[in-house]
Amino acid sequence: MIYLDNAATSWPKPDSVWNEVVRVGKQCGANPGRAGHQMAIDAGRVIYGARVALARLLNLPDPLRVVFTANATEALNLALLGLLNPGDHVLTTSLEHNSVVRPLRVLQDQGVQVTFLSGDNYGVVCPADLKQHWRKNTRALVFSHGSNVTGVLQDALALCRQAKELGLTVIIDVAQTAGTQEIDVAGWGVDLLAFPGHKGLFGPQGTGGLWVGPEISLRPLRFGGTGSQSESEQQPAVLPDRFESGTPNTPGIAGLAAGVAFIEQTGRENIEEHESRLTRLLWEGLAPIPGVTLYGPPGTTPRAAVISLTIEGLETSEVGFMLDKVFEIGVRTGLHCAPLAHRKNGTLASGTVRISPGYFNTTADIRAVIAAIEQLAGEAKQNT
Amino acid sequence: MIYLDNAATSWPKPDSVWNEVVRVGKQCGANPGRAGHQMAIDAGRVIYGARVALARLLNLPDPLRVVFTANATEALNLALLGLLNPGDHVLTTSLEHNSVVRPLRVLQDQGVQVTFLSGDNYGVVCPADLKQHWRKNTRALVFSHGSNVTGVLQDALALCRQAKELGLTVIIDVAQTAGTQEIDVAGWGVDLLAFPGHKGLFGPQGTGGLWVGPEISLRPLRFGGTGSQSESEQQPAVLPDRFESGTPNTPGIAGLAAGVAFIEQTGRENIEEHESRLTRLLWEGLAPIPGVTLYGPPGTTPRAAVISLTIEGLETSEVGFMLDKVFEIGVRTGLHCAPLAHRKNGTLASGTVRISPGYFNTTADIRAVIAAIEQLAGEAKQNT
Repeated sequence: MIYLDNAATSWPKPDSVWNEVVRVGKQCGANPGRAGHQMAIDAGRVIYGARVALARLLNLPDPLRVVFTANATEALNLALLGLLNPGDHVLTTSLEHNSVVRPLRVLQDQGVQVTFLSGDNYGVVCPADLKQHWRKNTRALVFSHGSNVTGVLQDALALCRQAKELGLTVIIDVAQTAGTQEIDVAGWGVDLLAFPGHKGLFGPQGTGGLWVGPEISLRPLRFGGTGSQSESEQQPAVLPDRFESGTPNTPGIAGLAAGVAFIEQTGRENIEEHESRLTRLLWEGLAPIPGVTLYGPPGTTPRAAVISLTIEGLETSEVGFMLDKVFEIGVRTGLHCAPLAHRKNGTLASGTVRISPGYFNTTADIRAVIAAIEQLAGEAKQNT
Repeated sequence: MIYLDNAATSWPKPDSVWNEVVRVGKQCGANPGRAGHQMAIDAGRVIYGARVALARLLNLPDPLRVVFTANATEALNLALLGLLNPGDHVLTTSLEHNSVVRPLRVLQDQGVQVTFLSGDNYGVVCPADLKQHWRKNTRALVFSHGSNVTGVLQDALALCRQAKELGLTVIIDVAQTAGTQEIDVAGWGVDLLAFPGHKGLFGPQGTGGLWVGPEISLRPLRFGGTGSQSESEQQPAVLPDRFESGTPNTPGIAGLAAGVAFIEQTGRENIEEHESRLTRLLWEGLAPIPGVTLYGPPGTTPRAAVISLTIEGLETSEVGFMLDKVFEIGVRTGLHCAPLAHRKNGTLASGTVRISPGYFNTTADIRAVIAAIEQLAGEAKQNT
């Protein structure tokens, strides 16, 4: 099958990822940080190595402030539920995923005020929007770096600068950009960075994390054994232990480190360039097809490797079904867990067909999906 | 090395576990439940298969009420923080792990009342204790089935029966018993069962879960995309989606299913019998050694495969260090994340040396650790 659903999870992973998962599981499968024997120490080293690799890739000043989570959703919940208090005001965008929107709705019920900035036609927010909607109780700005529906990118550096001037804590969701786009936590001044391990970072599913800046104090989402300060019935204050209660996903985190190593060997810029080229090709091939509507900014604008479309006369689920059954092409259809973003681009009722290339896709894959969409759109036109 | 730290995590895993992790990662590595294409459906089937396998092993009436978590700690936090409200009273024991104690301390600060039942000399609680400490606002009973410090077992059936008569919600932590001891959720009437995937169930680290009984309503620990009801900004009510926001650990869960399949093929009773035999041998070999103190019930009493000891004249960390460096035997020393249990048996200051055999240990492993402890205890005696 031609897999074009990399915005959900990258596939395939580099072989080195699975090799490392198995090597660590078989050779250092003890519980890291919880015993002094050699295999437990080896397991602890594997996890520390993953923190260091991520710190290098994302320019994080301190590896011990990388908190591993099960996915980016958990990381965003830890950031939002751990930081905000009743009476706080938070700024966000109209492009957020449910991993931001749903915790914010829960916080709203507890008295947190939320402003969804609508931004320009594509949902892009500018620094002036922050200034305009700033209030005395505005505590934080949270936004996704790249939209999982249209691929549109926010100008993270400009938003961070303005937010810092306003004294806001900056939370960025890099689910669609980590590993592909440039991310510079120290340079931008990001306070909390939530990333999935299993998308652009090529780790296995079940991995993700939150960078917690040195000025940030959070309530944990869960409490329990950390292998440290075991005599205390209180959660330790030291990071990362404070937020990592329970046995960590050692083999998964080892696989994530192998994924980051693959990116370093390949060159992040080369991955970005390859995915950009495929995405541009895709846009250029799809745009002229009669009956096809593309969403988000023009094909020449830099974006994450995500293109959303609808075909006149066809439900998105029908398109997905035909692509799968007839053409053996895997894409995602529907709402992509982001109702706000669909409302913004007018596809809340229909959803979209989302095509998301990854590093292992080829020009031939892109030609195949363009040809398939062309055929489906043509047949739909004849039937109407 | 001889690995005797199975109470922390089981090692090695059956080969079938790693084979399945890699097979699923390579062949059905899409995001389950989030797209309609074949690979996403295959991934969804893998996860459903794991729910069914666990339901069979633990006698859970409905596979869709198995909620996957990162570990047992997250499952216990979901149960406790999700269930209890200010003004509620909860009964627990003096043997609990920090995965129960620390969330309970947080809840106490919010106005939940907690009674730690001290039980008999070994911390075993009897049904009469529940009756005696019951209050009008007693909402729940939470206890670990087997202690991670001494291996002592609670009589889960008797406690469940009494708790149900008192109208309590029963939460059981089976971290030390799942996969080895008999667990009968439907027969006992358990409401919430928290299990790790990576101990007796032989799954990879990063797996665990919570069985949520049909009468139980919980607040989620995290909110976000579930692949279902994506149009709504509210968390879905349907299980397991309500509690599984974000991309699941598909390869890990696949490995867990392979671990459960290994148990079914081997026979849980055979695993229990093998571990019991090794644990009895260990007790019988250690008990007569001068200077060695063993904790918990006598060696003839059924227990989880855990034995804690101290050696006169040696710090537990020294014992652990020597076992590792000189004898190449891996055990855990210190407090085992359970300060209450150590207070109960008088080892809060010293901690203990914990030896925990697993299914893949042999009689020779047990003989080796007994000989090593005998040598260390003898040398310590000479030095005093």
